[in-house]
Amino acid sequence: MNEHLPSWHDTPARQTILKFVAATLERSGQSFVPPADRIATFDNDGTLWCEKPTYPQFIFAMQRLKQLAEEWPELGDQPAYKAALEGDLEYFTRLYPEEIPVLMKILFDTHAGMPQSEFDGMAAAFLSDALHPRFGVPFKQCTYKPMVELLYHLQASDFKVYIASAGGMSFVRSVSEEIYDIPRENVIGSSISFEVDRQSDKLVLLRKPGLIEPLDEGPGKPINIELHVGRPPILAVGNSNGDIEMLEFAASDEMPNLSLLLHHDDAEREYAYDEGAERALQLADDRGWTVVSMKEDFSKVFDF
Amino acid sequence: MNEHLPSWHDTPARQTILKFVAATLERSGQSFVPPADRIATFDNDGTLWCEKPTYPQFIFAMQRLKQLAEEWPELGDQPAYKAALEGDLEYFTRLYPEEIPVLMKILFDTHAGMPQSEFDGMAAAFLSDALHPRFGVPFKQCTYKPMVELLYHLQASDFKVYIASAGGMSFVRSVSEEIYDIPRENVIGSSISFEVDRQSDKLVLLRKPGLIEPLDEGPGKPINIELHVGRPPILAVGNSNGDIEMLEFAASDEMPNLSLLLHHDDAEREYAYDEGAERALQLADDRGWTVVSMKEDFSKVFDF
Repeated sequence: MNEHLPSWHDTPARQTILKFVAATLERSGQSFVPPADRIATFDNDGTLWCEKPTYPQFIFAMQRLKQLAEEWPELGDQPAYKAALEGDLEYFTRLYPEEIPVLMKILFDTHAGMPQSEFDGMAAAFLSDALHPRFGVPFKQCTYKPMVELLYHLQASDFKVYIASAGGMSFVRSVSEEIYDIPRENVIGSSISFEVDRQSDKLVLLRKPGLIEPLDEGPGKPINIELHVGRPPILAVGNSNGDIEMLEFAASDEMPNLSLLLHHDDAEREYAYDEGAERALQLADDRGWTVVSMKEDFSKVFDF
Repeated sequence: MNEHLPSWHDTPARQTILKFVAATLERSGQSFVPPADRIATFDNDGTLWCEKPTYPQFIFAMQRLKQLAEEWPELGDQPAYKAALEGDLEYFTRLYPEEIPVLMKILFDTHAGMPQSEFDGMAAAFLSDALHPRFGVPFKQCTYKPMVELLYHLQASDFKVYIASAGGMSFVRSVSEEIYDIPRENVIGSSISFEVDRQSDKLVLLRKPGLIEPLDEGPGKPINIELHVGRPPILAVGNSNGDIEMLEFAASDEMPNLSLLLHHDDAEREYAYDEGAERALQLADDRGWTVVSMKEDFSKVFDF
């Protein structure tokens, strides 16, 4: 029976997921969960879409720096702008997580200073037009087909499905309805600050340098889920150390719950890396979280 | 025709609201709004429930201080605890907005230091058990029946209805599903900070002294609506100066929109006061926002 999750092999991981979801729907069963409590939260980078060779948002920032340096050539003297002009992707991948102040300046230079509606258009255009360097398709197509099938299966099962991204909330929202069928308000993430401005008597939200605390990473994930949802997830899905607290948050609940960790072990079809996921993989083992292997569990990775 | 909003007199305000909502639903009309964009945001204190003689949350804080002082008598020396023990409500109403540091200490003493789930139970119990000093019914019954009818009418018209409260998000969420049929995740508000703790290997969210920025008041309202919803409201409802930016935010949109200001002008059935709403009333006049008069537009104020 392969009607749900057709891009998954019929492995124990797939069966665990399908059984869990089916049990939450079974009104007379011990594992029934009322719809209001059927909350699922998904990390985005590396869980729903490809985060290699680096985060799509870094490539967006690089493209923005290049545009800015072309407009104001004097900026080209600064290392980040110079690297962007030269297409030196390595420069950007080296920054995280060691050089946060440099990254912050890049973030503020490229993501702030414009009205929110304008940024939304810029992010959507980037994700639609810029091509993934290895796969040659737009970044917004680099989503994992089996994971998107899981989103849809949960939505069809009256789960409220949220994204909890360490990356930019506005960046992901710009395409979330189109690529995941997840409405903007169900995307939680890190965010730049805002200020209220007025243009010809109309209120405008301007993006400004600064970050909304807490960032949506590590302990910030359960805190932001509390702020945005007000309930712990009964299903949480992540792929890295930054998702540990979210996976723990799901498992902290007295209700039936499932924590899933996606393991990038398929160098052929995607990328194989444990870097940044070492503690999460260890905890999955210790706590009995379900590890999803891209290589073993996915019959298809992308939809292209 | 009185099938919608039965506790309203059939006044121009009621007709403006009904016409606006009907027009957004009319697929072939110029004012049609797709369901995804049908966002409505309501202030809570003074807009959905009674905020006099003071905010219910202040009375909750007072009750908590009293409990704490009974448990630890040495606290009774501090002015706020002393006032709480003596039932001196005046002490608390005098604090806002001049003595913010004192208020903050009261807030942190009474709203922080416990797991989130425990606070939720305390808030719900207070709102269910404590009686309004004038009306003699539980605070959670002191909601404005015509406004609750408006919430329901909007929900039935496929609006996504949010509360944007300057008061505590968790406080309002503890009863929002019961009294407004608004799910917890649709309540935006000010919030105390959180930290992640672990108890017997389970993750617990502890409430801790500190505030999540921005507070949900004034310019913080459109910013928090952007963070939680990602779209401006097409209908916003408030009653005070702290709602001005939210009302402007609705009116900033190119889509059809309606900004409503509730005017407390009914001393007999509720309270009559313009204090704290002077600028909002002036702006309503300047901008053509619809002012709803409790005295003229409401046929019934409460459901008791």
